[in-house]
Amino acid sequence: MASLLLHVDDGAEVPLHRQIFDGIRNRILAGEVAAGVRLPSSRQLAIELGVARSTVLQALDALIAEGFLVSRAASSVCVAPELPVAREFAAVRRVAATGRMPRLSAVARLLLATPTGAPRLGAAPRAFRPGIPALDLFPAALWARIAARTHARAGFALLEGGDPAGHRDFRAAVAAHVSAARGVRCTSEQVFVTAGTQPALEEILRLVLDPGAAAWIENPGYLGTRRAVLTARGRAIPIRVDAEGLDVGEGVRRAPDARIALVAPSHQYPLGVTMSLARRMALLAWAARARAVVVEDDYDCEFRHRGRPLTALQGLDEAGCVIYVGTFSKTMFPGLRIGFLVAPPALLKVFAAARADGFAPASALEQEALAAFIEEGHFATHLRRMRVAYRERSAALLAALQSDCGGVLTPRSGDAGMQLTAELDPAISDRAVRAAAAQRGVEVAALSEYCLGAERRNGLVFGFGCVRPAEMRAGTRLLAEAIAAVRRR
Amino acid sequence: MASLLLHVDDGAEVPLHRQIFDGIRNRILAGEVAAGVRLPSSRQLAIELGVARSTVLQALDALIAEGFLVSRAASSVCVAPELPVAREFAAVRRVAATGRMPRLSAVARLLLATPTGAPRLGAAPRAFRPGIPALDLFPAALWARIAARTHARAGFALLEGGDPAGHRDFRAAVAAHVSAARGVRCTSEQVFVTAGTQPALEEILRLVLDPGAAAWIENPGYLGTRRAVLTARGRAIPIRVDAEGLDVGEGVRRAPDARIALVAPSHQYPLGVTMSLARRMALLAWAARARAVVVEDDYDCEFRHRGRPLTALQGLDEAGCVIYVGTFSKTMFPGLRIGFLVAPPALLKVFAAARADGFAPASALEQEALAAFIEEGHFATHLRRMRVAYRERSAALLAALQSDCGGVLTPRSGDAGMQLTAELDPAISDRAVRAAAAQRGVEVAALSEYCLGAERRNGLVFGFGCVRPAEMRAGTRLLAEAIAAVRRR
Repeated sequence: MASLLLHVDDGAEVPLHRQIFDGIRNRILAGEVAAGVRLPSSRQLAIELGVARSTVLQALDALIAEGFLVSRAASSVCVAPELPVAREFAAVRRVAATGRMPRLSAVARLLLATPTGAPRLGAAPRAFRPGIPALDLFPAALWARIAARTHARAGFALLEGGDPAGHRDFRAAVAAHVSAARGVRCTSEQVFVTAGTQPALEEILRLVLDPGAAAWIENPGYLGTRRAVLTARGRAIPIRVDAEGLDVGEGVRRAPDARIALVAPSHQYPLGVTMSLARRMALLAWAARARAVVVEDDYDCEFRHRGRPLTALQGLDEAGCVIYVGTFSKTMFPGLRIGFLVAPPALLKVFAAARADGFAPASALEQEALAAFIEEGHFATHLRRMRVAYRERSAALLAALQSDCGGVLTPRSGDAGMQLTAELDPAISDRAVRAAAAQRGVEVAALSEYCLGAERRNGLVFGFGCVRPAEMRAGTRLLAEAIAAVRRR
Repeated sequence: MASLLLHVDDGAEVPLHRQIFDGIRNRILAGEVAAGVRLPSSRQLAIELGVARSTVLQALDALIAEGFLVSRAASSVCVAPELPVAREFAAVRRVAATGRMPRLSAVARLLLATPTGAPRLGAAPRAFRPGIPALDLFPAALWARIAARTHARAGFALLEGGDPAGHRDFRAAVAAHVSAARGVRCTSEQVFVTAGTQPALEEILRLVLDPGAAAWIENPGYLGTRRAVLTARGRAIPIRVDAEGLDVGEGVRRAPDARIALVAPSHQYPLGVTMSLARRMALLAWAARARAVVVEDDYDCEFRHRGRPLTALQGLDEAGCVIYVGTFSKTMFPGLRIGFLVAPPALLKVFAAARADGFAPASALEQEALAAFIEEGHFATHLRRMRVAYRERSAALLAALQSDCGGVLTPRSGDAGMQLTAELDPAISDRAVRAAAAQRGVEVAALSEYCLGAERRNGLVFGFGCVRPAEMRAGTRLLAEAIAAVRRR
């Protein structure tokens, strides 16, 4: 009979029976207790360890169930006689000791080497983190009431998850909204719910882009698009963005055979330009001829500060090339994780096939709540209020930048959205300013980080959505300090 | 001055101003109204169309904003003089008329050709749809209360979405649960929230599997795993499953250089077998030597009807090869769309890099609610109740099958989970029975559909989770009719 020399720790988080289980198992696996050996009785073990006998029995039962021990007679428990595992375990331990890790894919190695955007200084929103809406103005109590009602009324169909394309009522609400507000031509059958823009891009690229195939992306452009093409193992072709948006002519010259173009025609990120009608038509004509897909990322289309928002490129698409991508991260809040794509009719079958046997990647109950929020008019009301708020915040940021950083920063016209880009004096590195600002607790993004290849831009990208007008100056003063510190070097 | 010959429809869903916008835009794009032509005044148009003048002005403003029209004098609006788009538009229309669709990736073509599981007969759960828990016993009112509370208290950090790996409290709750209940050894930093099992598999495969690289999958096995390998462009190597689980020896012989093995060791789907200790150790030893990854899909581990659940394979992993994948789809409800993966320490960096600049793909508020549900003990209580319920339902299904289909169906021992597989008389095709059952409103899955290559199995897979014991016979009687109908052919 072996003495097991176990130790248990009463104050540990791991329950006692699990500690006993682990202790005996590890001694068997390490070969320290030989095959066939009889264990002390549960009563003896309980006394030895100072624990209840039931605790010991719980551990022994588990070890029997897993094949480490065998129960012979009433109170006799032995190590399994034929346990061909100790040797294997020793081999694993030897490999583990070498510290070698599992091999990664080429994509994983690229992702590890890809720059990320501005580092987040803590979880709570702060000046001037891009992409964060005015959470202080979100009608959280109203949303909570509607969510509570939806949860309370949820039937089996909602709990079950429903259609892999998304919850029916929600798709209908989205189709109605984007038709009326964005001039998107679609039925609810064309709407596929996603967990946001990035997953939507990944889903689309999987179905359109073969590894090594070319994809036009905007330069400078949204880092998430670049990342999505990389993840899809595609060949990203960065196309210059000028005052009219993506230079379609350059795309046609450099990669006429591209399979996809990823654009934000309503409000390009980070430059904020709108694609001209001529460029829109040229893009659609190329896509139709090349049988390529155009992805229209309409991420903050709703917030135009002057005039009315332009209608979506999708509304001009006669050939069924455009996939429209929208998100509620900016219009509601990012933690919601609900977005959508609108597929052209010819692609409905393949999007459905890709999700067959699956689920829409968003909470069915939250989809239902959001459908109600839209249908009851709260969404439209909220958008109207946000337009006013962002106009105000945009003006406040412009004034604050003028006061504190007037000499070195030249803001581009910010007539839409919740971001503003400013050109920085070429003598001052935007990445150095970003780092110096971060040291002072201010987040800004560096424009140069969004550029690829020969494209060189030096500037800062400000998110003003989550910053109250009265707090702008606090941020821009710290930023001015950061810029001064970089200049002194 | 052109007459526009527009028509608007007062009863249509599309707002009147949008109809006018579309009408004028399309006539310009089609070249039916020439560049530079002056339009009738808004007053004239309003009278012609029988609408308010403000409606016309809304449409004209939008057309000016988009570049179709230009405003000259006070009341004079013309078609833009240099509109190089009519020709492009005509070209697009010509292509569109040929009905050619965008080119798809090889993966998309494969997905279109991949069989899906049993077709869903409507949205509501029904006998015997696999994978659906006992929604009738889910404490929906309690969950609604907790969700309401969480929504009502949500602060900016939750609305903002927080850590791309997932909400901190939730990751801590998951780590504590899987440590205690499943013997998984992890800290909360190793937990990454996913939108369910399928997205978790896709995320893992992207980081581990290069296109064309080999992946062991179980044969027969879960269709979602096969689909995930296909989507990752990997080479699926189907490995036979016997009474001890996946035949590791066969894997080593056929694809020693595989980069990943995807297994469900606790409760294999669809056979329901548990992987033996010897096989577990052999699998881990191979993975450590090959620097491969083992994905442990622990999808319905919590529901063992007899004895205690075996601990997770992950708990035996000394070399850091195992990625544990769990879901709340079976323990809570599928519409929740919350799952998780537990990455080994050596892979934390790459999983974080893959999500950099992104968001955890699940509602932050629902994560918070689920964390509270777990921490307050409701989850453990619910699991205990479900264990009793599934034991009852499993027994009821066995009895019902014995009564109605005893001669032709031989159930495998169903000692875990919410599914049961029964071998079918080889003379009767399982797919024919599935189709005949579907005609009678009963869903079953065909075992043969889960097999690849030379593997031939004939049987039916029943989900009994969502079927009340009293309703089993209604289902099995219809199934018996279906089987009889197939036999008569």
